[in-house]
Amino acid sequence: MKHLDRDLFALQDRIVELGGMVEAATNRCIQCIENFDLTLAQEILDGEETINEMEVAIEEECLKILALHQPVAFDLRYIIVVLKVNNDLERMGDQAVNIAERVTALADMDRLVVDLDFATMGSICGKMVQRSIEALVRQDVVIAQKVLDMDDELDALHSRSYKTLQNVMKEDLSTIVPAISHLTISNNLERLGDLATNIAEEIIFMEEGEVVRHQEEH
Amino acid sequence: MKHLDRDLFALQDRIVELGGMVEAATNRCIQCIENFDLTLAQEILDGEETINEMEVAIEEECLKILALHQPVAFDLRYIIVVLKVNNDLERMGDQAVNIAERVTALADMDRLVVDLDFATMGSICGKMVQRSIEALVRQDVVIAQKVLDMDDELDALHSRSYKTLQNVMKEDLSTIVPAISHLTISNNLERLGDLATNIAEEIIFMEEGEVVRHQEEH
Repeated sequence: MKHLDRDLFALQDRIVELGGMVEAATNRCIQCIENFDLTLAQEILDGEETINEMEVAIEEECLKILALHQPVAFDLRYIIVVLKVNNDLERMGDQAVNIAERVTALADMDRLVVDLDFATMGSICGKMVQRSIEALVRQDVVIAQKVLDMDDELDALHSRSYKTLQNVMKEDLSTIVPAISHLTISNNLERLGDLATNIAEEIIFMEEGEVVRHQEEH
Repeated sequence: MKHLDRDLFALQDRIVELGGMVEAATNRCIQCIENFDLTLAQEILDGEETINEMEVAIEEECLKILALHQPVAFDLRYIIVVLKVNNDLERMGDQAVNIAERVTALADMDRLVVDLDFATMGSICGKMVQRSIEALVRQDVVIAQKVLDMDDELDALHSRSYKTLQNVMKEDLSTIVPAISHLTISNNLERLGDLATNIAEEIIFMEEGEVVRHQEEH
């Protein structure tokens, strides 16, 4: 195996590892929201630094490979995609942190009795993270396309929670503060999905040379 | 002048041009929010495609320089920073579009009589875009640091509009729908500032080799 190939495989292992961390943080978010589990919220907050350090290390690795092997054509584009995926994963980690902080704030308030699909939204997000990384590793446009489809589903659930929360607020003024916090969580989940969508679009762009990135934006 | 230097200068000109477009979109947002100017809102929406195309073209340019000149050390890191700045600028453009869409939706509703500092927030955002690009061009850490300071100011104004809007909703149920739209605009402005902050942190990281990126996150 060529040195470059060996380094690219090692780089892939690391991005898969980072993806796994972000997926785990996303799954913790679901539990954390459902049960106001502050131990889990703290675990998400504690995990942020590791994710950040990992992002910095992966970026350094990319720069090292570029400087050492001076790859061209597909290998060069692949490394650039890894750099962008790396950045998006770290930003997803930030969204998990935002959710953990919001749940921590909510734990002190009266519980809002409202039927929101946060568990489904969170589970879609987790799958989107996992499948976007799978699409990268397998260089598989079909899997990437599934991530885009999941994002549509996520957006629909986000719109629904928005409407539900608006109605809850209208019916009972005392719900305004916690309802806005729930809106923020819904926003964070939707943003998490958008970041996974960015990754999927990068894979499709890399594979098909097509600029899907800007067709689906909203 | 070496070929590489010439290409790097040309690349810099293009990122400055893209920065200018995003700054203009941000400034249009301020007018658009203040006066519910739907012509301006439409201009922001119409400008999105040009910003997106410019981002794709700059990324291609970066890949071409990497493949052709195989730069190392500072030049390599500089190109990677340009790639990330390019990505952040495009995402700022998306935030301007989100604001334009929200203002368009608000134009059909009853006006919310509330004192929000959106003009100041928007003007801080515009300055942050402009100065973050200036920091890149001059490779100036002091200017980059000023962008970080402006972000603190922006965050404080965002918190204030959050509280103001919560109170408005509590006092008058009929304001809930437009107030939530105003909250979203405040969020979009805050996200715009965060993206400029990312750029500033990249410059500091590049210049000082320091990982400020992860110290200031929230």
